Amino acid sequence: MMKWWGWGDQKITFPMHEKPTLWPWISSKLNMKSERATPPVARKDVAMPPPTVNHAFLAALKEKLKADQITSDDEARLHHCYGKSYPNLFLARKGYIQQAPDLIVYPRSHDDVVAVIELANKHDVCVIPFGGGTNIVGGIDPREDGDRMIVTLQMTQMSRLISVDKMANTATIEAGALGPKLEQDLQAQGYSLGHYPDSFEYSTLGGWLATRSAGMQSDAYGKIEDMAVCMKMVTPAGTIVTRPFPASSAGPDLNRLMCGSEGVLGVITEATMRVHPTPAVKDYRGFLFKNFESGVVAIRELIEKNHLPSMIRLQDEGETELAFNMKSPPKGLQAFVAKGVKGYLKRTGYTKPVIMVVGWEGLEESLVHRREEGLAILKKHGGFALGKSVGTSWSKDKFNMPYLRDWVMDRAVMCDVSETAATWTNVLPLHAATTAAVKEKFKQEPSGDGYVGCHISHTYETGCCLYFTYAAVQRPGQELEQYYEYKKLVTDTFMRTGGTLSHHHAIGYEHMPWMEQEVSPTGVEALRALKAKLDPKGILNPGKLIPQKLEVSTEVAKIPADGIEGWGAQSFQPKTLQTATYEAGSD
Amino acid sequence: MMKWWGWGDQKITFPMHEKPTLWPWISSKLNMKSERATPPVARKDVAMPPPTVNHAFLAALKEKLKADQITSDDEARLHHCYGKSYPNLFLARKGYIQQAPDLIVYPRSHDDVVAVIELANKHDVCVIPFGGGTNIVGGIDPREDGDRMIVTLQMTQMSRLISVDKMANTATIEAGALGPKLEQDLQAQGYSLGHYPDSFEYSTLGGWLATRSAGMQSDAYGKIEDMAVCMKMVTPAGTIVTRPFPASSAGPDLNRLMCGSEGVLGVITEATMRVHPTPAVKDYRGFLFKNFESGVVAIRELIEKNHLPSMIRLQDEGETELAFNMKSPPKGLQAFVAKGVKGYLKRTGYTKPVIMVVGWEGLEESLVHRREEGLAILKKHGGFALGKSVGTSWSKDKFNMPYLRDWVMDRAVMCDVSETAATWTNVLPLHAATTAAVKEKFKQEPSGDGYVGCHISHTYETGCCLYFTYAAVQRPGQELEQYYEYKKLVTDTFMRTGGTLSHHHAIGYEHMPWMEQEVSPTGVEALRALKAKLDPKGILNPGKLIPQKLEVSTEVAKIPADGIEGWGAQSFQPKTLQTATYEAGSD
Repeated sequence: MMKWWGWGDQKITFPMHEKPTLWPWISSKLNMKSERATPPVARKDVAMPPPTVNHAFLAALKEKLKADQITSDDEARLHHCYGKSYPNLFLARKGYIQQAPDLIVYPRSHDDVVAVIELANKHDVCVIPFGGGTNIVGGIDPREDGDRMIVTLQMTQMSRLISVDKMANTATIEAGALGPKLEQDLQAQGYSLGHYPDSFEYSTLGGWLATRSAGMQSDAYGKIEDMAVCMKMVTPAGTIVTRPFPASSAGPDLNRLMCGSEGVLGVITEATMRVHPTPAVKDYRGFLFKNFESGVVAIRELIEKNHLPSMIRLQDEGETELAFNMKSPPKGLQAFVAKGVKGYLKRTGYTKPVIMVVGWEGLEESLVHRREEGLAILKKHGGFALGKSVGTSWSKDKFNMPYLRDWVMDRAVMCDVSETAATWTNVLPLHAATTAAVKEKFKQEPSGDGYVGCHISHTYETGCCLYFTYAAVQRPGQELEQYYEYKKLVTDTFMRTGGTLSHHHAIGYEHMPWMEQEVSPTGVEALRALKAKLDPKGILNPGKLIPQKLEVSTEVAKIPADGIEGWGAQSFQPKTLQTATYEAGSD
Repeated sequence: MMKWWGWGDQKITFPMHEKPTLWPWISSKLNMKSERATPPVARKDVAMPPPTVNHAFLAALKEKLKADQITSDDEARLHHCYGKSYPNLFLARKGYIQQAPDLIVYPRSHDDVVAVIELANKHDVCVIPFGGGTNIVGGIDPREDGDRMIVTLQMTQMSRLISVDKMANTATIEAGALGPKLEQDLQAQGYSLGHYPDSFEYSTLGGWLATRSAGMQSDAYGKIEDMAVCMKMVTPAGTIVTRPFPASSAGPDLNRLMCGSEGVLGVITEATMRVHPTPAVKDYRGFLFKNFESGVVAIRELIEKNHLPSMIRLQDEGETELAFNMKSPPKGLQAFVAKGVKGYLKRTGYTKPVIMVVGWEGLEESLVHRREEGLAILKKHGGFALGKSVGTSWSKDKFNMPYLRDWVMDRAVMCDVSETAATWTNVLPLHAATTAAVKEKFKQEPSGDGYVGCHISHTYETGCCLYFTYAAVQRPGQELEQYYEYKKLVTDTFMRTGGTLSHHHAIGYEHMPWMEQEVSPTGVEALRALKAKLDPKGILNPGKLIPQKLEVSTEVAKIPADGIEGWGAQSFQPKTLQTATYEAGSD
């Protein structure tokens, strides 16, 4: 169970003491005049709303499940109130609970899920599937408009590796398996799924599938939907079951209908996934490029020549500066050498270099030529090899970033991420437009400045994902308003410059206002049709993914009568977004 | 326009004179006692049913389109009565027209299609999208139960290459573009889609997308749905428009909902496709393996070592024998050498060899190592290199096979193909079970024997496609009954042994009775929901893909009151199939 107010294990905090230049650099970047402490409230100061109880449902449920599979304990409820978006954590830290689930249910089998959904449908009780709880787009917090009871279906007790088919390179796995458990079970049999999203430690197979997640090595293994061979999804109208085939042409692909369904169309209970023998070699290396543009040119040549590695991550100037300050400073001889290299690089034109981390995975014999040819292409475009240590320190820090967010939120800093994907034609213009828009916005902050950085990851023949991180000193009393100003600005910029609404974070309610722009009004109608048929009473994860028919609520959340400090989100008006139109290829 | 009674250009017939051993070999294989001529009826003996006319619709349509875009000419109607399945051609050759479209409409733009669909929806007129007309599963012939007017939308005048984005490796193309036109336009700009299904010469981009087609080089470029970046699909409820992204997590992938929709959910009018620079090298080579099994082992090692070529086609014993008899006999020195090689092979254990054709495409520098390592793996598993001539003769003959079917149908031979895909675990058992079932069935024929062969093509990490061809002497007076006995036997065997209903031929009405088994009853409900929302009056391609709710018609087609020679299909009872259940992993 993660912190109710932040990321990860209660005992883990960001290791700032190991990184002496980091906080001074951030403070200066944000133009922070003085440090203001904004710790989370104490647990005792969090007032949980009393649960709504549908007695007939509860009685029937108790007949079906064991006593230890059901709880209305406040501690469990608190841990399922929010995902891990910035506004989620901001509210949690204030001790303000918008809505809490009334009951937490722990299914242990597909049949348990069927029983819960049947009873919930019969008694008109809402159900929210919940894996590790890492969603950052508002995918798992209750958003019930009416007064129905809300059940959160805690899936992590369904974590079995059911079978591995070594001939077919497939594994059948229960949907509640968390990343580490799933990989451990597979690796014990010599296999790997190879799906490592940033949330890996606290996210589940079902969550990945329901949000079309992308792991760091997606260049080698694909996005999660590319790995899904077949699935089971329980809906109030019955269970959709697909069969294990490498490919098919039997009508529209129902696996792709279940992937990305965000708990709104059904509850994914198990999946057969494409797996591969555990890679013998994991070779990660760092490179410096003179600028972001030359890094992009190198990636495009790797693609063109069909020498794409398993992973490429290209950081822009902003994120490279952050990465340099994430490092522990070198000592002794290492420091001497580092200084020498730095001088050499400056003299040869790497004045504002950017970092690229490249990884090759697989059998040594299979990747030796690919790597050799890849290295030659990187060198040709000015890639300066930093060796394997950069790869190692990147691997070490890759799961640390969400802890850093908690650290800065303790010090009155707004910090968010927004990601998209665009075709290569749009990558550099989108990067430039978004960076410029955010920087311009920083000028309007009282502090007058902020941090924005971006990396490219997940590359395709046609384009790539761009992942932005931005931070600024909070505007006291207007924290959520501030956040939604950036969210709208960045998302509008993505939509205007050819970016998708999300490459791997999904929709939830945070991205819902743009759905008609993204998939066209008729596309949304198609999703509504599926929803109406599979979940006619609308019990599944209400208020997510599919915008309401007539209007999108202009409220981001329900405002308490007496207000909370800093509440300003009501000025965010998704309605105006929804009427804007996007012309593909315009701009 | 293809022959109304057969495949391809009126002027082209199968070059049997170049293959002196072929017909004797087939006759012997089928145990054909005497040759019976069964030519198609003369054009004048085909009685076209008078067209149904919805006058209000026709008048309104004439306001929207030019006169030369609309015809009810019998010649045009005849050419749009049938696809190219065996029962389609059998009926056409008898001069028996089950149903004919009443009007052929030739849209020239997306807006033309919108206008037709709007008017058809308003006036309750059925619309069947029609590309090149090569469908062999009953996807394009009229199946209207009532008395509504039927329009066939002939898409091939919408064939423009709208734009190529060389930076993004994408091209936007109108859906009616036939394969050769599409490739010619792209190759003029140095690009290629690289999608070469067997039907290439006579099929369209829209048809490929609507049926989830697979081209011969799908190992390199993916199935057509993998290449689709975004699309437009016109429905009675509006147009679904997706945007060009390399990947997204914005809800279920609507591109995958449009792919495989078979004209039942909408009319695809244009698509942005992933393309690639025209491959500099196309290196196709033939190999002999001692048996089918060792060929499969070699393919699996290519996959495991990540050295998969652009194409692999492994023929089993039956199909290899056919291939040997497709060749012109060698002469002079060539014959002498051939004889020597043959002797050598027999002595070294290649007594009943099988052929593998392997192709590498791309830049020489990118594939040199992959090919080298691939060749070593093939050799290791007993692959005897036949050189590039086999690749060349295979390339020459690959589009010829449908003409051979016409040739044997002129001589009272039933000939059909059935294809599926299965995981590697199921590939050999499915191959053995299907081959055995068909051979057992041959024993019950009056002739007592027949031909069955299979090849593997389209390989994946998890499995591959298996493509069966079978032939037997027709049972006079029971030709369709005979065909449906084999169709049911083979499809039931696929379903029982872990095969998909279709890997790339789609559903139409021929595979519809198995749809609930394939995607589960709730899966079919999801498709029905989409149909009801996007096409509430059911005007789009009725009777295809999505089985009727309460019962599947037990008639394969409407039987004329006075009967036709050989009509026996009514004994085919899809109802019993539909109630059978398939347990994934059983058997």
